[in-house]
Formats: sequence, structure tokens, C-alpha cells
Amino acid sequence: MSLPCRIVAGVRGAIPRPSPTRISRFGATITTREPSNQVSRHIHHQTRRQAQSAVQAQPQPEPAVPESTNPALSFPCLDAVESRSASLSRRSLSGPEPSYTSGKHLDFHSKQPLLLDWGGILAEFNIAYETWGTLNQDKSNAILLHTGLSASSHAHSTETNTKPGWWEKFIGPGKPLDTDKYHVICTNVVGGCYGSTGPSSIDPANGQRYATRFPILTMEDMVRAQFRLLDNLGIQKLYASVGSSMGGMQSLAAGTLFSDRVGRIVSISGCARSHPYSIAMRHTQRQVLMMDPNWARGFYYDGIPPHGGMKLAREIATVTYRSGPEWEQRFGRRRADPSRPPALCPDFLIETYLDHAGEKWCLEYDPNSLLYVSKAMDLFDLGQEHRTRITKVRQENSGKLQAFMDGKTLAESANADLCNLTLPEQPYEEKEQAVDEATASEAARDLLGATEPPADLVAGLKPLANTPALVMGVASDILFPAWQQREIATTLKRAGNRNVTHIELGEEMSLFGHDTFLLDLENVGGAVKRFLG
Amino acid sequence: MSLPCRIVAGVRGAIPRPSPTRISRFGATITTREPSNQVSRHIHHQTRRQAQSAVQAQPQPEPAVPESTNPALSFPCLDAVESRSASLSRRSLSGPEPSYTSGKHLDFHSKQPLLLDWGGILAEFNIAYETWGTLNQDKSNAILLHTGLSASSHAHSTETNTKPGWWEKFIGPGKPLDTDKYHVICTNVVGGCYGSTGPSSIDPANGQRYATRFPILTMEDMVRAQFRLLDNLGIQKLYASVGSSMGGMQSLAAGTLFSDRVGRIVSISGCARSHPYSIAMRHTQRQVLMMDPNWARGFYYDGIPPHGGMKLAREIATVTYRSGPEWEQRFGRRRADPSRPPALCPDFLIETYLDHAGEKWCLEYDPNSLLYVSKAMDLFDLGQEHRTRITKVRQENSGKLQAFMDGKTLAESANADLCNLTLPEQPYEEKEQAVDEATASEAARDLLGATEPPADLVAGLKPLANTPALVMGVASDILFPAWQQREIATTLKRAGNRNVTHIELGEEMSLFGHDTFLLDLENVGGAVKRFLG
Repeated sequence: MSLPCRIVAGVRGAIPRPSPTRISRFGATITTREPSNQVSRHIHHQTRRQAQSAVQAQPQPEPAVPESTNPALSFPCLDAVESRSASLSRRSLSGPEPSYTSGKHLDFHSKQPLLLDWGGILAEFNIAYETWGTLNQDKSNAILLHTGLSASSHAHSTETNTKPGWWEKFIGPGKPLDTDKYHVICTNVVGGCYGSTGPSSIDPANGQRYATRFPILTMEDMVRAQFRLLDNLGIQKLYASVGSSMGGMQSLAAGTLFSDRVGRIVSISGCARSHPYSIAMRHTQRQVLMMDPNWARGFYYDGIPPHGGMKLAREIATVTYRSGPEWEQRFGRRRADPSRPPALCPDFLIETYLDHAGEKWCLEYDPNSLLYVSKAMDLFDLGQEHRTRITKVRQENSGKLQAFMDGKTLAESANADLCNLTLPEQPYEEKEQAVDEATASEAARDLLGATEPPADLVAGLKPLANTPALVMGVASDILFPAWQQREIATTLKRAGNRNVTHIELGEEMSLFGHDTFLLDLENVGGAVKRFLG
Repeated sequence: MSLPCRIVAGVRGAIPRPSPTRISRFGATITTREPSNQVSRHIHHQTRRQAQSAVQAQPQPEPAVPESTNPALSFPCLDAVESRSASLSRRSLSGPEPSYTSGKHLDFHSKQPLLLDWGGILAEFNIAYETWGTLNQDKSNAILLHTGLSASSHAHSTETNTKPGWWEKFIGPGKPLDTDKYHVICTNVVGGCYGSTGPSSIDPANGQRYATRFPILTMEDMVRAQFRLLDNLGIQKLYASVGSSMGGMQSLAAGTLFSDRVGRIVSISGCARSHPYSIAMRHTQRQVLMMDPNWARGFYYDGIPPHGGMKLAREIATVTYRSGPEWEQRFGRRRADPSRPPALCPDFLIETYLDHAGEKWCLEYDPNSLLYVSKAMDLFDLGQEHRTRITKVRQENSGKLQAFMDGKTLAESANADLCNLTLPEQPYEEKEQAVDEATASEAARDLLGATEPPADLVAGLKPLANTPALVMGVASDILFPAWQQREIATTLKRAGNRNVTHIELGEEMSLFGHDTFLLDLENVGGAVKRFLG
């Protein structure tokens, strides 16, 4: 307990500590220099950078003996964020932010506009993709591999990009996606930032980045864009559609939208509709990002990107991806440096792990892409009622597409329905006992798999009645819980599908939660290999 | 799909939209006014408020026809936050922020300093408390009720504060805490903001608010302060120590620290040591709060409080308190206003619920209290190894207490060990396959209750060997999961306690997750009543 104090004055960050005052503990008050409340108010009327410059410009007084009962805490975690802002600020003065990239990939550019489910239009769009294995002569051996939220098309290393891909061990000769047999295609989703058209792309209508003028999009929109690529490649029917997490949603969506073009589907840790916990967790990620002042309502492309908000969003996401029994084993209650007293900044090993995960990622992905793609996940619902509604919306908007093709901008055509939701004037009031105990118990039984899947979802999955399906889930997954996988499997069966394989990895088989699909070559990969044959 | 657009220009918020430019979709570029990237850069060199004033000072141009392919999104959720900042800014100019209060309560003021576990000192401190029922002649019928993280002493209405308390239905004649039999005492914890000494209190040493010069504290510190109050009231031995959530931790801590002064303990949805998921979730709450520029490293008391960060922190907390099967039933996938197209701001009913929960709370609790009390929860560990270490630290610091009482400030005495943790220079690197599969499976079996509790925890709970205990858990609780309750119960038994009642409410009995203890009078209240007798 006698370690030297590591506080270094120069790295204390932009917010100055209240200047020392000397006050006796027994009442006589002799204030010297500026009291803390004035410093605090002062800061609120300047930017932090201005405050910093002002402080740096002043001659630094000799460190005086603090007078409070206990010394002030230091905040190295905030120092780190501020120092990153400062270095990004220097960068942004010398040019625009670097483009997000996963390296060399193939490009398909569609000049035909794409009408999106909620009425937006992409005048033209790009799809970045990569392939492995050889397409056979009758083009019948193609597997479309769908990605998770933030992944690029780089699922496996290629000749032009030798960096390992996100499913490196799962693709190759003799591997679960066997390149001796199959031609594997992976795309970056529309809305993403690794080469496909997304919010960081240039809107051809005005030569500026879309930013939050990018339209709301859906899983189905992403899949439609992928099928334009397949059209272009002359692939009429996929051997299989395979995906995990968001890719599992897309795999189901592909089979539903284009049931005669998909031979079989694999959905790993996906879902047939997003549930409130997952919406809530993505909501908090979007909110922390949007609250970062650097986000600037999406128009940050020529300034400091909202790296702080992105870091926080990633930390929250990491909790949903990885928490569970593994963390007990790996981190437990160990502190990063047990020889030091605790702090409000990261302190436990689990905290420094999350901090580092956020730090590593915060400039790797376009913040606006995170918002749009995450929202598209929330909106995912394969139920019949939702499809009926969207079909109607698309019909209503087909005239808009025509008008657009006739040369009008969308904004010029009647687009009142494109304006965005405002909060209801009466906020949602919590009602005590809002839940009827009997129906609530029924909901609980649903989750435990004791009752039948909802008829609406059975109707919605009818197009998949004849598509062989592998549905996998992981008991330790809190984001796409195992009950959702059981829901998919049971729903498919009730929709008439006699070829459904459902596998659930118990906690004795995998502790890695949602991320199991990235890690478990033996159990996840093995099942995929057996299913694809 | 033909609703009128509700975007009102005046409430669009501080960040101006990029000014319209007119560009033909087919290439000819005619830029008018300021392009968006310049606007964006402009904003980064001013405060938002300055930017707003500047924009408001300019004559507003007639709304021009937007030229992008799709219209820009609006962000009513950010408008709301900015408008709250603006109104708080007006308030802060006319005086300091309102003091947090739950109404009239009793006060105990200790003039004796309190040495905290990690070496901090409170020169003197206040405990706000309330009581119900009558203390009997031999003072043997007192029940100390411990609160959750953010609750006040106001567990039940009183004559001087008729507002219903947070456990209103659980306290009263014939109720689970039966005021015909017992004298119930509830305190606001040290570190809190409802009358007990906390970061928003005045440090007697310098007459300023502690802010982040408040020392790190622990559950045990809070309990020690409570027992000073009991000393003052002449209560030698409690009939029972009762608590839920953080209060459950304190209940166990009270029984461990003062085993001869606690007749029996009730711990509902608490734990004997915090686990990584709960630390991770509290970590994200602290981080979003600390990243709010208004937090100003804790020195916000005379400025705009970090209401945005508090709102986000509460939204994340609410997910951990309430998510689960109940949400499926109550919110499902319903949207707040299904007639409107989706938005990036809250849209689903679950989102508007979280938004409202955050909004309602963001000025109700002191942000620094949230940081300190939440950290104290993370630090909670009743294992023997931890206690041995803290005992050593306390011994080392006893000299410091003496020096302080002799008139030196802590800062003047050697306090190098009080400086705060900085992140390790080598950030935590994720290692693939870091977890040994065999030990990982063992960890999984632990969680499933198949193996014995750790010997360290058994040793730590030895002081409770003769204290009758009721331990309750709720299967739908994700923050203090049911396995932790089983851990407490089994550990107590292994420590030699033959009077342990363990009750677990299955999902068929409660869907309310962690918050069940606030809601379930029948099952939770009933068990407490039977146990207390």
C-alpha cells in the first residue's frame, strides 16, 4: 500500500481541476484563486478545447497542497478519450476521415434504382463482395454467406487480401463451407461501410455523403440487393443460404422472399423476429452514439468522428455478445492491478476488457452504418401481418419509384409519409400490474417452449415449407436466446417443413454466448458441414 | 401512408441541417450556400449553444426543396435532450441545482470521523433515516431495512411525508414488515443523495461540495455508518436485517461484520459477491455518464447537470432491472405509433418506455452518487481473501485516521496509496481459446449449481453460521441471477448454518426480473412475513 502515485499533471485532461484553496478544517475560510464552481461554470460557456487552450496558456502554478479531506480522483479513461479527440482533430484538419475498408474486394454496381421497404430509394448502389471456390458450369453450387452486423465481405483470406477473414477456419477445402464443392459468396450489406453503399457513400443526387439522409432500410432490402448481384452473376438458384446472427435473419429472409431461388437455409443464432430485450440493447447502443456531440446528427464526415459514442456502443454490444459463464472463468472478480486502490475508471479486468474492445473498434466501423443496420435488425419480423403491411407500403410507393425514374427527386414528389416518427405527446406511463398474470404466465410458457408458436409467424414462414433448414442455437446466448431458435424450428415445422434440423448447444458445450458462431469450429462448423453434405 | 409530416422547423434542435444545394441527379453540380461538410466543421469549432445562437441570428432562409435522393431524418429524441439542457442552463444561471430530497426525514449526525475501507475518511457524516412502528422497551424489535442503489429512506409514507414509499405495501400493521410487532428503520446510504452524506454534500474541510473528491466507499462502509446510528438509538441487537438487491448485499454484510448484533437476515435478489456481468452492466452505466461533457469530472454542481448521461445510464439499468418474459407480453414488437414509418429515434414501444424511464429519473438522483454507490456494489465480495486484504488495509490506515484526528488533512499525510488506478500500459489483449475447455465446463457446472461453492466464500460467511437466514431469488432476474441466490444459500449451509431458507420464484411465478422484490407482495412479502414470524 505504498506505491508511488502515478498521476502525471500533463495528462490530466481538458477539464482543469478546481484550483486549490486553503481552508482550515475547523471553519476559518481563506479562499485563494478561483473556486471550483466558477471553474465549472466557466467550462460550460466554452468548448472543452477552448477551455484546454485557455488553461494551457496560463502559467501553470506550482502544485499546491490540496485542502479537501481526501484527494480528488483522477480519470485516466477520460484522459484517453480526450487525447484521441485531440489527435483526430489534428487529422481532420489535414483531410477527410479515412474510408472504412477491409481491403481489396470485388464490386457489383447496380445502375437500377432500388425501392426500399419503407419508401426510400437508392438511385444506384454498390455491393462489395468476395468469393471462394469455383462456380460450376450450371451455376448450381453457390452458397451465399450472410454476415453479422458489422462484418465485411472478408469472411476468408483471398489472394488480394491475405488478412484472415471473420470465418477463416470455417471456409476452405474440406471445411464446413467446402470450397472443393461450393462457390462461396459473401457480401457487405447495403447500409454497411465496407464497400457497399451506405450512409458514408456519396448520394449521386447531390455529390455529398448520405449521412442521415440515407433512407431507413430492412433486412429484406439488403437481401434484395444481394439477389441483384446473383442476377448479375447469372446464379438462378443458390445451393444454400447460410448466416449467423444478423446473417441468420437474412438467411431466413432470403428463403422467404426468394423461396424458389434458395436450395436450403442455415440460420445460426438468428431469429424470425427481434424481441424486446435485443431491441432494448441495440436502442441503448444507438442512443449513446447519437448523444455523442461529435455525432452531429450524422454529419461528422469532415470532423472528429463520434469515437467516444462508438466506443461505448461497442462496450454495450460486447456485453450482449460475450457475457455468460465464460466471463466467470476468464475474468471473475479479478482486478486489472490488484495492488492499487479502486477507481471510478475501469478497474476490474472485465472493465479493462470492455474498454479495450470499445477502443479497438471505435474507428473501424462507420457510426451511421451502425445506426441504420442496427435499426434494420430491430425492424425484422417474418410474421404474416408485417409482411402484408410492407407489401402494401411497397405497392403505394411503386408510383414514387416511377416518378423518381422519370427524373423527379423523392423530395419533390409527395413524401409526407417519409417524415420521421416523433415521440407520442403523452409519454409511455408505467402502469402497475399492467400485465395480466394469467397471460403473463402464458408468455413465460411460450418462452420455455411449452406452447405453440404464434399463428402469424407460422403463416409468415409458409414460403419455407419446402426448404431444408438447419437451425442452431446456443444456451449461453443472451442476445439471440435459445428459445428464439426453438421458435424458428417449431414454426418451420408447423408451416409444413418436414426437413428441419434443430441443434442447441448447451452450456456444457459452449460458454461463449452469442459469439459461439465465430469460435466453435467443431460444434457449429461440424453441424453446418453435415447439413450441407 | 399519407399522414401529414409533423416536422416543425422550430424544434429541429441546435445542429443545423446542411443548407440545401441544388444539384441535378445526372451530374451537373450547382452548389448554392454552404455545403454540409463546412457546416459540420464549423460546428466542431464552436459549442452547440454558440452554433445555435449563430444560426438563430442569421435570417432564416425560406425552406428550399431538398436536393438529396431522400429527405434527411429528424431527431426528436435529441431535440428533447437539447431543449432540456437549454432550460437547465437558464435555471443554473439563477442559482445552484435543487438539492435531491425525498421529503422530511430524521437525521443522525456523527461528529466522529469514519475511516473507509479503502483509506478515505469522512470527517463527520449525516445519516437520513425514517422509522415505522414502535421501538419496544428492551429495544429488541428493531428491523433495519436496507435499500437498493438509488432509493431513499422513504420506504413507507410517514406523517410528515405522506408520499407512498418504495416498499409501501410491504410495511404496516399485519404486513410483511409488521409495524404492530416491529420497529422498522430505513436509512439513506452514505454515498447517496437523499440526506445522507455523499458526493453532493459539503466537505467540512473546505466548505465545497465533495464531488469526485469524495472517497471510494464500500457496502461495509455504508453498514458501519448505519451501526453508528443504531449505537445512537441505543439498539444493541437487531431483530433482523432485511434487504433486496444492493440491500441484500448490505443485509449479508451487516450479519458478517456485526454477527452478534444481527438476529436474523433476509437477502432478496442480492449476492455474496458481484459477478462480471453485473459489473459490466454497471460499468457501461458509469461510462455513459462520465462521457457526458456536462459531467465535467464530477464538478457540475453549479452548471448543467449531466442529465443526458444520467438518462442513458438509467435506460441501461432499466434493461437489467426489468427485461425478461414480461417485456414479451407487455411490449412485444409493438411500435409507439404504428401509422408512422420507422425512425432512428425511439420508435418501438420498448424504446419509448426506456426513453421515458430515463427521462423521468435523470434529475432525481445525484450523478456522482450513482458512480460511487454503483462502484461500491462492484467492489462487494464477502470472500475470506478479500476480507483479509481489507482488514490489512484498514490496519495500515488506522495511523492515518489518528493523524487526521490530530489535525492534519489526509492530503498532507502520506497518501500516495490513495491515488487512482490508471489503465495498465499493455491493454488487455483478447486471446483466442483463452479459456481452458475443461475448467470452463467446470465453471458452467458451478453456475448450474452442480458443484460446491468456493471454499473462500464459505470461509468468508463463517460469521453467519448461527444467524437464521432467508435467501430469495427470482428465475427471471438477469442482474442478480438465481444461481447467485443458490450460491448464498449453499455457502451458508457449508459454513455450518442449519437455519437457511432458500426460495426461488420460477418464471411461472414472476416475470418481473430483478424488480420482482418491488412488486410481488404475495410471494416475496409472504415469504418475508413467514420467516420473520
